[in-house]
Amino acid sequence: MNYEILETKERITADNDREAANLRQAMQSRGVFFINLMASPGAGKTTLLARTIEALRGEFSIAVMEADVDSDVDAAAISDLGARVIQLHSGGLCHMDADMTARGISAMDLSGVDILFLENIGNLVCPAEFDVGAARRVMLLSVPEGDDKPLKYPLMFQVSDLLLVSKVDTLPVFAFDKEALERNVRSKNDNMSILYLSAKTGEGLDEWLDWLRREVRDFRAAAGKEN
Amino acid sequence: MNYEILETKERITADNDREAANLRQAMQSRGVFFINLMASPGAGKTTLLARTIEALRGEFSIAVMEADVDSDVDAAAISDLGARVIQLHSGGLCHMDADMTARGISAMDLSGVDILFLENIGNLVCPAEFDVGAARRVMLLSVPEGDDKPLKYPLMFQVSDLLLVSKVDTLPVFAFDKEALERNVRSKNDNMSILYLSAKTGEGLDEWLDWLRREVRDFRAAAGKEN
Repeated sequence: MNYEILETKERITADNDREAANLRQAMQSRGVFFINLMASPGAGKTTLLARTIEALRGEFSIAVMEADVDSDVDAAAISDLGARVIQLHSGGLCHMDADMTARGISAMDLSGVDILFLENIGNLVCPAEFDVGAARRVMLLSVPEGDDKPLKYPLMFQVSDLLLVSKVDTLPVFAFDKEALERNVRSKNDNMSILYLSAKTGEGLDEWLDWLRREVRDFRAAAGKEN
Repeated sequence: MNYEILETKERITADNDREAANLRQAMQSRGVFFINLMASPGAGKTTLLARTIEALRGEFSIAVMEADVDSDVDAAAISDLGARVIQLHSGGLCHMDADMTARGISAMDLSGVDILFLENIGNLVCPAEFDVGAARRVMLLSVPEGDDKPLKYPLMFQVSDLLLVSKVDTLPVFAFDKEALERNVRSKNDNMSILYLSAKTGEGLDEWLDWLRREVRDFRAAAGKEN
């Protein structure tokens, strides 16, 4: 093992933290509430964003940055809803960092935008390591993935503010124990909020939308105090 | 962006390829058929390994290296079946490389072992980039993840020899189009074999076991010619 790779990574991470802090400040000044949305492949990030955009139409202007290794299927799905969206390709990398995110934001027209989502690359490991300058980190865990995931991917559960357990309409189909999940989450993160929802049936969607409304209100109050 | 990180990565990858080739040769000489098993978190890798060990008991001696960022829940599940197993922790890394794999193999007693599985870290991005010296790369894609994944994680589908579509008992619950999946797979990899199975109901398991038997037979024939 050539330990230089770890040293390089640490140096990059320190640079990243500074750049992320700058980006967070810039978004605060512009009044854009920026959320970093993370999950495994196929956990339902895009579908949740689509339902959220539809439900909050007329209330908030929502823009989305879709990050993927390749393809633009997610950007196409969001664009079909009339929301502002950009597709970012990571060049094979397993995560977005603050610099890549800043370049994505520079390429977007955010005038009038209230909420900006970054749909991060589908991965429970690398995205947890990189602050992209978001005001909040939200993660999805889908029921089919299982209740033991906090034990296997602890950092993702430690850095996220909110856990959305998705696809709860499939709870009867899978051996998924909500109590075991909550015990596993608590062993890694005392403060994480947990909500259960299904973008398919709409169950639990209101609680997520209320969380979002509350966060935007608090964000604006904090921004108002600063300005 | 500090481009040194990419240069470092290329250097590491070149070293990795040499080490992987050495490891593959060593496993060939020892007559151990070594499979690198890759998938998203929660796609069903451990459950498939458990069913495989049970089904082939008395026919093959199977050993498993469980790679995770943290925890040992998978190693415990395999150990309960009486199979030889070791738990590898990646130190936060999103993949296993050839050096980490070689260290895992050194720590195991492989005498009498016919088949060795590496259950790689749950991730569709990084593990695809690192040859770990396996004779075959097998990937799982679970039905809940969706049929568009070859478009979004092309490298994983390009480097794998066999695609196991898992959790097919949940096909009635999810919008998963087998024809779309096969079209998407073919757009990335002409030669990939595709099998459909459910470790829960046992559907399709025989085809997977037959594939394994055939591969072990061919591996032994090739090893016999060389020695």
